[in-house]
Amino acid sequence: MPATEKPTELRPFPLVLEIPVHWGDHDAFDHVNHTVPLRWFESARIAYLEESGMGHMMNGQGRGPIVASVTCHYRRQLRYPDTVKIGVRVASMRRSSMIMEQVAFSSQQGAIAVEGTAVIVIFDYRKQRPARIPQDMKSAMERYEKRPISIEPPLP
Amino acid sequence: MPATEKPTELRPFPLVLEIPVHWGDHDAFDHVNHTVPLRWFESARIAYLEESGMGHMMNGQGRGPIVASVTCHYRRQLRYPDTVKIGVRVASMRRSSMIMEQVAFSSQQGAIAVEGTAVIVIFDYRKQRPARIPQDMKSAMERYEKRPISIEPPLP
Amino acid sequence: MPATEKPTELRPFPLVLEIPVHWGDHDAFDHVNHTVPLRWFESARIAYLEESGMGHMMNGQGRGPIVASVTCHYRRQLRYPDTVKIGVRVASMRRSSMIMEQVAFSSQQGAIAVEGTAVIVIFDYRKQRPARIPQDMKSAMERYEKRPISIEPPLP
Amino acid sequence: MPATEKPTELRPFPLVLEIPVHWGDHDAFDHVNHTVPLRWFESARIAYLEESGMGHMMNGQGRGPIVASVTCHYRRQLRYPDTVKIGVRVASMRRSSMIMEQVAFSSQQGAIAVEGTAVIVIFDYRKQRPARIPQDMKSAMERYEKRPISIEPPLP
Repeated sequence: MPATEKPTELRPFPLVLEIPVHWGDHDAFDHVNHTVPLRWFESARIAYLEESGMGHMMNGQGRGPIVASVTCHYRRQLRYPDTVKIGVRVASMRRSSMIMEQVAFSSQQGAIAVEGTAVIVIFDYRKQRPARIPQDMKSAMERYEKRPISIEPPLP
Repeated sequence: MPATEKPTELRPFPLVLEIPVHWGDHDAFDHVNHTVPLRWFESARIAYLEESGMGHMMNGQGRGPIVASVTCHYRRQLRYPDTVKIGVRVASMRRSSMIMEQVAFSSQQGAIAVEGTAVIVIFDYRKQRPARIPQDMKSAMERYEKRPISIEPPLP
Repeated sequence: MPATEKPTELRPFPLVLEIPVHWGDHDAFDHVNHTVPLRWFESARIAYLEESGMGHMMNGQGRGPIVASVTCHYRRQLRYPDTVKIGVRVASMRRSSMIMEQVAFSSQQGAIAVEGTAVIVIFDYRKQRPARIPQDMKSAMERYEKRPISIEPPLP
Repeated sequence: MPATEKPTELRPFPLVLEIPVHWGDHDAFDHVNHTVPLRWFESARIAYLEESGMGHMMNGQGRGPIVASVTCHYRRQLRYPDTVKIGVRVASMRRSSMIMEQVAFSSQQGAIAVEGTAVIVIFDYRKQRPARIPQDMKSAMERYEKRPISIEPPLP
């Protein structure tokens, strides 16, 4: 998405993904079911990992992302037809995890409708345990974000 | 979609909808799960009903489409990242139903990957029974298709 | 579910729903996708509202539940075949909302695999705004929980 | 499921899987969305492959099932709450494929609500092409079905 077309609310996000709302995303209350934005956010995170080059660094080493936790706030109901613009960024990181922030901007309503966070652990699927985020992956992330990523203290 | 950008395979379809493939559409065999194109086709049919004006004619009268049957053929495996172009058209109609044809064209592979049909009944949700397709709805369909729609004989 | 069959971890929950894990719930990392437990939790909340009689009190008045926010923690990977036991309870309430807690207990692993919370607002879908939780609904909830429900102070 | 509890309509099926209908399976027409039974059928087919021992014979050889085509007929609308009983059987086979038949029996309505077929190809995921169904797999299938499986002539 050209920077000039980015709504102001999406400026902080290095990657913005456009996704059409489907009629089938509605539930019996006739709005988009609350689980659907979680799938949009997942798509945006995967795109982020690939675009930033981080995904490439994981491949072939048995490492990949795994979701440790999510939060999601629903500010506005979404309805078909609409196109959402999903913004995603890395907010901060720890030894083997990072906090990613995502928003869903409704083109119809001209406003952010949903926002969420996800704690993503870099996971060694062979050893079945978290893997340290190597320096080259952190560097790729910072190049992509065009800013330094703050390191959170270890969890108690 | 401008006609000039339409792949040849999509020329017969009055409506073409672009849908991004999501990473989460994959199943454990690491390709798009076979139920996902059915959702794409549903989205395309709903868009068809709205764009052709038929949806407008149903609203406020308690009538709506209901799926009586579907068929789907999977010619090629689909994988993320890709964008599918879904073509949809009405092939023929009966007293209260129509046969819709849909295809999913893979931009990555430059070929049709999935094709399917759906028998859609115009249903009176208040009376809970099929409703005759009125002449104005048939006319709207033919204007949208830019061709006459053949009438199938009644089912035995 | 008879109380005697309840795993200890599910004792605090007045309603426990058994749901089979489907093969198609897996994603490309070959475990249950992180959005699936959110659907399980939704099913359990709906069952709670119906079983407690609260759903009945909303019907016919245009009121219904709407999800304001969710959190979800993933402690263990889930895999097919398994049956999860979803526990759900109301933790506390405010003027027009309640905090519901849910857990997913893996029968295969004999442990809680996922836990989450949801802020559910009682919403007047006609007026499109939150509705006060009436006393009879609160009473139904307390009868069902067999304990008083604490009232949270208003949000600042 | 003990044979004595099997509804008559499910007698022809060696495997019957019980699946609860979820509230979230509803779409905006307030009945179960037509794509949902396709997921149920997939679950039942996977269970069939495992229970019959066929799945075990594929593992470790890079072979697995792939869906070539499906058909599905919707006879009755399904609504939450309900439990569907999914029956599945192999109807016939070819060199490297089999036709599986599935039905969804509604416990609430006491009748078959949906029926479908699937052409499943045994696929060599390493070589990316169909694999001949070996004799031991056919034998496992016939033991499980307790009847000989007819062989269809090759497709023209």
